[in-house]
Parts: sequence; C-alpha cells; structure tokens
Amino acid sequence: METFAEASAVRPAGPDVWGGAIQPGWDIAGNANGGYLMAIGTRALIASTGRADPVSVTAHFLAPGKPGPVSVRTAVVKEGKRFATATALLRATDRPVLSLVGSTGELDRTGDHQRPEDNDRPEGYELVDSGPPDLPPPDECFALVATDTFPPPFMGHVDLRLHPDDAGFARGEASGRPLMRGWFRFAGGEPIDTVGLLVAVDAFPPTIFNARQAPAWTPTLELTAHIRARPDPGWLRCRFATRFVTGGFLEEDGEIWDGSDRLVAQSRQLALVPRH
Amino acid sequence: METFAEASAVRPAGPDVWGGAIQPGWDIAGNANGGYLMAIGTRALIASTGRADPVSVTAHFLAPGKPGPVSVRTAVVKEGKRFATATALLRATDRPVLSLVGSTGELDRTGDHQRPEDNDRPEGYELVDSGPPDLPPPDECFALVATDTFPPPFMGHVDLRLHPDDAGFARGEASGRPLMRGWFRFAGGEPIDTVGLLVAVDAFPPTIFNARQAPAWTPTLELTAHIRARPDPGWLRCRFATRFVTGGFLEEDGEIWDGSDRLVAQSRQLALVPRH
Repeated sequence: METFAEASAVRPAGPDVWGGAIQPGWDIAGNANGGYLMAIGTRALIASTGRADPVSVTAHFLAPGKPGPVSVRTAVVKEGKRFATATALLRATDRPVLSLVGSTGELDRTGDHQRPEDNDRPEGYELVDSGPPDLPPPDECFALVATDTFPPPFMGHVDLRLHPDDAGFARGEASGRPLMRGWFRFAGGEPIDTVGLLVAVDAFPPTIFNARQAPAWTPTLELTAHIRARPDPGWLRCRFATRFVTGGFLEEDGEIWDGSDRLVAQSRQLALVPRH
Repeated sequence: METFAEASAVRPAGPDVWGGAIQPGWDIAGNANGGYLMAIGTRALIASTGRADPVSVTAHFLAPGKPGPVSVRTAVVKEGKRFATATALLRATDRPVLSLVGSTGELDRTGDHQRPEDNDRPEGYELVDSGPPDLPPPDECFALVATDTFPPPFMGHVDLRLHPDDAGFARGEASGRPLMRGWFRFAGGEPIDTVGLLVAVDAFPPTIFNARQAPAWTPTLELTAHIRARPDPGWLRCRFATRFVTGGFLEEDGEIWDGSDRLVAQSRQLALVPRH
C-alpha cells in the first residue's frame, strides 16, 4: 500500500504544470476525500513557490475526484520574503476538480515557540483560549469501520477514532449536537507533515450527522485551512463543530492539536445542507 | 462623495479583464481597507460568472492598495447550476494587490427562510447556536473618530459604533479580551448589498488591539467570507473574536447579523502578529 507522501506526490509535467494521480482507496463511496484532493493541489502550490509549508490554503470543490491521473496548473502571483502566494487548478482528464489559492512559507516545528525567551519578543506573544479536546485513549474510542449504512473513510489509509459521545450517528443514534471529536493518524504510523494536516481537517464524518438522524452526502463548497506549525509525530486530536445551519448552508470549524498540546491547524468549510 | 456602489464598481476592459479604481478615502493611514479591495475584486467575480451574489470568497493580500486605477483579470473555472466558481487577480498599475477565488450564486433575502413551510423541507433545516451580539443602541456606542494615536477608518465612508466595553484600546485601555463588537453601516444610509458585507467583515479594528496595549499594523494574509443571505436594510451588528495567537499568527472570526436577527455573513482572516 502506498504511503500518503506517495499518494499525494506531484512531479513536473511542463511549464507551470504538475502531474499526479488520485489513488484508489482515498475515497468515500467512490469520491476521493476532499482533504486528500487539497493535499495533491497543495503539493503543486509548494513546488511552484519553492516554500516548505502551506500556511493558508483555500479550495473550491468543482467536481468529485475519481481515481486516475490529474494535472495541476499553477500560477505564482507573489514571491515575498516571508510568504509566497499561488493559485492552482487541479484537473482530471475530463474536467476541473479543484480550484485553489494558497500562501506558503516556512513554519516552525511545534516546539519552537515554547522557548521562554519568546515571551520577550513582540512576535512571540501568544494567547490560547482553549485546549485540545478531552478524549478517552484511542483504544477506548470508536474506530470507524464499515457498516451496512455507513462506508468507512479511506479504506484503511487513515486511522480515525471517534469520541464515543460523538459516534452514535453510526448506529442511528445521533447525539443531537453538531460536534465530532476524535483521534487521527495515517495508517502505518506515517508521520504527518503540514500537507497531511489537510487530510486531517476533512477526514471526519460531517458534524451534521450528529445533529440530524440520517447521514447523507454533505457536499463541501469551499474549505480553508490555516496551518500554524509542523506537528509532532503521533496521534492528532481533532475537534469539529457547527454553529450555524442557515439558508441551506453550514460551516464546519475544525481544530487540530498535536501531542505537545499545540494547535497545528484550524479549518473552516462551507457545506451544503443535505437534500434528502 | 461617491457611494460604495460607485467606489467598488468595475466595467469591462477587455476579454476577462475588468477596470475599476481604488478611490481615495477608503483607506486607513494610506492603505485601502482590505474588505473594500475584496469588494472590487468580487464585483469582477460576479460580473464574470453572471451570478448575483458572492457565496464564499477568499482573498490573499499581496501588497497594500493605494488610490488609483486597478484592473482585475478573471478566469471562470466552473459554471454549475447552482454556483459558479472563478479566480481573480486585482492589479494596480505597478503590482498585484489581491488574489481571489470565489463561488457565486443567488442568495435568499434574509426573510425568505423564515417561512414555516421551510421546516418541512430537508434543505430548510436550520440550527443557530447563538444570536447577534448584545449592543447598546448606536448612539450609546463609541463612534470611531480620529485621535492622535488612532486614525479613523474610511474617512467618513463607513459608520462604525463600537461596544463601549471594546473601545478602551482607543484611549490606551485595552479590555484584555481579543473581542470587537459593534454596529456597521455605510455613511449616508446606502443599503448594504452582499458585496458590501465584505467591507463589514474587515472594517473593525483588529481584535488584538484589545488583547495588547499598543495598537499596531496587523497585516492580513488571507480573508475568507461566507455570505449567507442578502441583509435587510439598516444597521448591521458585528462580532469579531480571536481564540488563538500562536506561532506569529492569529485568526479573527467574524459574524455579521442584520436587523431581522439573521446571520448574513461569517468571516475568518489569518493575520500576522504585529512586530512592534
């Protein structure tokens, strides 16, 4: 089985064009996971700008991604001292799949900002309003596996463990709270780089599954991820919540925390209320 | 004095190119307000896609915008039944200023989803976790005016009234909470369309002014706005908060509510911690 690094890789395929592939097995019911598609597009953003990490990436989802070759056309619009900005269009052979804009740069490792002397530098100022979600150990959480009514995500590429209080939807017992908390790692313990965090922010079942009874396709229109730091190796703790379902739209806000209790990514997506 | 509609207008200037201008007076200390720049770019997104409203728009800020002519080059990447998606690059004569991607569509007026029969349609399902901020009447709030240490926003184009509890920073007495709440309208009572909401989401002083003592330039790297509905005419109530200042970055989350107590926009920006 290929690693995430392999499954999301791109290679030069012409001026401002990068080649890659949507690998089978990164899908839910035949459609590639949105965060995985973003990861492929973001590899091209990184390659085109020559920076190490995504800092803020936005994707608009144009069509479902099916396994097969893809091309990513990039346009670098700014190369600054600290950040570069580029757009990208990820296409399957027959149609555009994803439109992206992102800024890239060089992020700290999670531990870098915990030096005491940082408090003396203005840019070292920090404020953290809340911490990682309180989760039972992974072995006491709910591992998502296939059921008759719920397909498993990613067919074994990703290890997801839901907080037991948020897993009721899978047996038809939604909690009534649009909240989804749990552990995330790649199968096989592959370290998660800053591009891998894009998979984490879109890997969990939609929060709305816990607000309503029947899980249904909840299409994402747009997803923005802010990457704050390079995560420590190991399990990530994730929290997704929705506050407003209005006008046929809902937002889903995500936070990803690493083993050092450091916020490594924040996300928000705009999705459409299922019409079932 | 020109209206917002005039100040943000674009006209065809070639295939996939739109002409406009950054008007003087929409700046803070010489740099055009970011939301106003987004509004100009979004007029081009709307014109190129032929849809009425922005639904989700992301801008990456490349350089300060100075008064003068601008061009916006657009590329439509999808024209769907319900939404269209396009990218845009807003340039001043000498450099790129703003890179955008957005999806456009046709939004409801704020009252449209309050019909009782909506509850019977799956897509009419709604959930609202909180309401508009509790504000004293506009006349009892703090109108931002120039002081020796704080320039007023927009030189009279925008009428901002801060919650008294959040206005202490202007006299050197930050509340200690990274929160900024207040009223917003255009000067002269010009109705606020869905593009005008982009100004509202970036019009208030940075939340961090209330967390630290000295207000300082807080550059926005990226701003995403979700527009949920066409607002009712009149004052808007706005709430901006920051939960995480880490690694030199901070997010600022905004909510905009109209006179019908309807959430009309949600925003998040990624900004850089001031280095002063």
